[in-house]
Amino acid sequence: MQLTPPLPLKQIAGIIDAEFDGDPAFQVTGINEIHRVEKGDLTFVDHPKYYKKVLDSVATTVIINKKMSSPNGKALIFSDDPFRDFVFLIKQFRSFEQASAMISPTAIIGQGTVVQPGAFIGNNVIIGKNCLIHANASIYDHSIIGDNVIIHSGAVLGADAFYFKRRPDYHDKLESCGRVIIEDNVEIGANTTIDKGVSGDTTIGKGSKLDNLIQIGHDTIIGKNCLFAAQVGVAGCVNIEDDVILWGQVGVQKDLTIGKGAVVLGQSGIAKSLKGNTTYFGSPVQDAKAKMKELAIMKRLPEIIEKLSEKE
Amino acid sequence: MQLTPPLPLKQIAGIIDAEFDGDPAFQVTGINEIHRVEKGDLTFVDHPKYYKKVLDSVATTVIINKKMSSPNGKALIFSDDPFRDFVFLIKQFRSFEQASAMISPTAIIGQGTVVQPGAFIGNNVIIGKNCLIHANASIYDHSIIGDNVIIHSGAVLGADAFYFKRRPDYHDKLESCGRVIIEDNVEIGANTTIDKGVSGDTTIGKGSKLDNLIQIGHDTIIGKNCLFAAQVGVAGCVNIEDDVILWGQVGVQKDLTIGKGAVVLGQSGIAKSLKGNTTYFGSPVQDAKAKMKELAIMKRLPEIIEKLSEKE
Amino acid sequence: MQLTPPLPLKQIAGIIDAEFDGDPAFQVTGINEIHRVEKGDLTFVDHPKYYKKVLDSVATTVIINKKMSSPNGKALIFSDDPFRDFVFLIKQFRSFEQASAMISPTAIIGQGTVVQPGAFIGNNVIIGKNCLIHANASIYDHSIIGDNVIIHSGAVLGADAFYFKRRPDYHDKLESCGRVIIEDNVEIGANTTIDKGVSGDTTIGKGSKLDNLIQIGHDTIIGKNCLFAAQVGVAGCVNIEDDVILWGQVGVQKDLTIGKGAVVLGQSGIAKSLKGNTTYFGSPVQDAKAKMKELAIMKRLPEIIEKLSEKE
Repeated sequence: MQLTPPLPLKQIAGIIDAEFDGDPAFQVTGINEIHRVEKGDLTFVDHPKYYKKVLDSVATTVIINKKMSSPNGKALIFSDDPFRDFVFLIKQFRSFEQASAMISPTAIIGQGTVVQPGAFIGNNVIIGKNCLIHANASIYDHSIIGDNVIIHSGAVLGADAFYFKRRPDYHDKLESCGRVIIEDNVEIGANTTIDKGVSGDTTIGKGSKLDNLIQIGHDTIIGKNCLFAAQVGVAGCVNIEDDVILWGQVGVQKDLTIGKGAVVLGQSGIAKSLKGNTTYFGSPVQDAKAKMKELAIMKRLPEIIEKLSEKE
Repeated sequence: MQLTPPLPLKQIAGIIDAEFDGDPAFQVTGINEIHRVEKGDLTFVDHPKYYKKVLDSVATTVIINKKMSSPNGKALIFSDDPFRDFVFLIKQFRSFEQASAMISPTAIIGQGTVVQPGAFIGNNVIIGKNCLIHANASIYDHSIIGDNVIIHSGAVLGADAFYFKRRPDYHDKLESCGRVIIEDNVEIGANTTIDKGVSGDTTIGKGSKLDNLIQIGHDTIIGKNCLFAAQVGVAGCVNIEDDVILWGQVGVQKDLTIGKGAVVLGQSGIAKSLKGNTTYFGSPVQDAKAKMKELAIMKRLPEIIEKLSEKE
Repeated sequence: MQLTPPLPLKQIAGIIDAEFDGDPAFQVTGINEIHRVEKGDLTFVDHPKYYKKVLDSVATTVIINKKMSSPNGKALIFSDDPFRDFVFLIKQFRSFEQASAMISPTAIIGQGTVVQPGAFIGNNVIIGKNCLIHANASIYDHSIIGDNVIIHSGAVLGADAFYFKRRPDYHDKLESCGRVIIEDNVEIGANTTIDKGVSGDTTIGKGSKLDNLIQIGHDTIIGKNCLFAAQVGVAGCVNIEDDVILWGQVGVQKDLTIGKGAVVLGQSGIAKSLKGNTTYFGSPVQDAKAKMKELAIMKRLPEIIEKLSEKE
């Protein structure tokens, strides 16, 4: 999430009543969690295991639960609970606004776009030209949709990231302030759900086509001209490059990359990054040819074992 | 389903015009099918294979298709088709009522709760304080929702149990009269569906978080602080204890228990009860370490077989 | 899609400004793509690999990208891009019509049918008697629903087929002009999606029961009294015969047949046609007994291999 205009370090620290190390006038231009952080952003870290990663990242302001001097070109804000204070900041800058109508008066809807009855268009949503939003689709606040986009009934764009911190007695929610961005010529199937970014954007690239009942997690970025068949599930913070084809019911775990032109056959499960221009199959996924060989051997196994035993 | 007030055996039997064995004034305090039956309830049995189970259960009144004397402390109602008569009784005491508005005038909605446009709140629904019901969610009649609950767009609470009896030429539907109960601090993802109990309650325990596109079957009871990732499917009459984590696309069959603190990795399929505090993987599911070992051996299989053949 | 009344070849060719071979008065009675084509229909072919299949089909008029003489009893229309011209024709005869209300004034709704608040009933939809359409269900234009049908909240009937042609820089959409047909006594679960046929009909047979979050692809035909558990996914152009049972999360690939009375266990993946009256399991699917044997051997594999090695 960008801060417009940027705010000085002193003011941000003041909101959460925290001490800081750095120039009080140091500019904070945005707020983002570590996966999608950009230069000028404020982020947070609350576990020593991740201190180095976060301090070495492009983030320039970090809420941290250890007193230290701020590294070159960065500022630090000290907190006994950086997660709590990060969430507090997000709520300051983008809190939930109750809707006043099925189509918010603050939504901008382009020429030639048809919104069917029962579709919900939230506050500050921007929809381009010649789109078709079918009945009972739901588009949460701040989503951005390009031109010539089709969104089928029951699709939900912009629900909250599934992102919790385990506390001793409960799960603490990381409030989402990110957005969903749908580029031109995309089609979103019926009852497909695309979560907003925690603080960055979940993006569906130009010309990609998603079938029905698909889940796309927070902050995931999908390239151009991808085809996903029904019931595919993609977790958060995934990078899927252009021209990737996922067949039905494929599952993709978080925080990995699928290379350009990869094809993944139905019901496969992806737990590690995959190179492009290759066909994959299985759960866990393998090169499709290797997997098929393995399956063939498995079928011949009783016979092979018997033969080996007999020879003796 | 509780009967308030309780009704005497004679009156219940009269509704379905059936003979009975027992004190005509014997009190029937509720109606429940066998999986979730409680003391004082009426239930039914129509197959000799299950006579003993049902007659030994805590049910105190049983509709049965065999003439016999009622066991100690119980009453029997005789029927040539107990399923038909059980359904008839359910329809008498809780029949479908057409809604008169998107938010029923008989619904009770707590202070601070926001209901977004397009959300449907059925008859006799009770929602607690400070909840957020997003656009186009649907909450069927008689559902009960606690405080601080978030329900995302397109979620459906209280659709009918998927429960049919095979007749020679068709499937006969067991009408559902149960409820959905959502405890405090639960979050329900977009387009997730939670079916009502057939006659008992489907319950999501305090602080549990369900991601998008999840299915929870009738009469299933989920404990506290569970986390279910997107596209998980849980059948009916399942007991999931506290702190269970199910990763994406896991499938759980009916009528089993998953122990406290169990973790089940993505796309696993669960057909038997699982002990708690263990990590599982596979379809059918195994201890995750054993499954990983098996997968490693499978990959080395061609090489192993070749070596064994050569040695000879 | 039927053309009522039928149109002469000359008029059809004129719409797309194309040359043709055949009697100018030759009657075109419908428009269908090759999977569901019927006698009298116009279809298209744009790849030499499929010329023979299409010219040998029952289609009587074919848009083709090769000049040749029309076979006996057929007519040909010549086009440099048959896909483009086929889509153009579909848009001429059945283009999208914006809805004017949640329940279209052109919809026909039978006696005793209840439509709950928030349900969308599109143009020219026909619904039979004594149906129950729950809140926030969406039924697209031209769907046909029989008597005693229950459609749960969030279900979407008639979204577009997921059917694209790869162009060098994008995916070109095959516009759908087919319908969804739901026969008597069917029940459709919450958030289940059933796509319309590309040009034929997607049909759910009498008495079949579909649970929640199921996907049924375009032009698929499901027989009578089938039971599909939650999260099943069936691709396009599948034929499922009567009394088939698919357990939860089963996936079915396109363009195959599942025989009468087949039972497929949970999470199975079906890539080839299956004979009826058999139980199946696995991804890819096998006879369930064979699969169980294979799984048992896999578990004993480490021990077997060790034994074989030792003997030497």
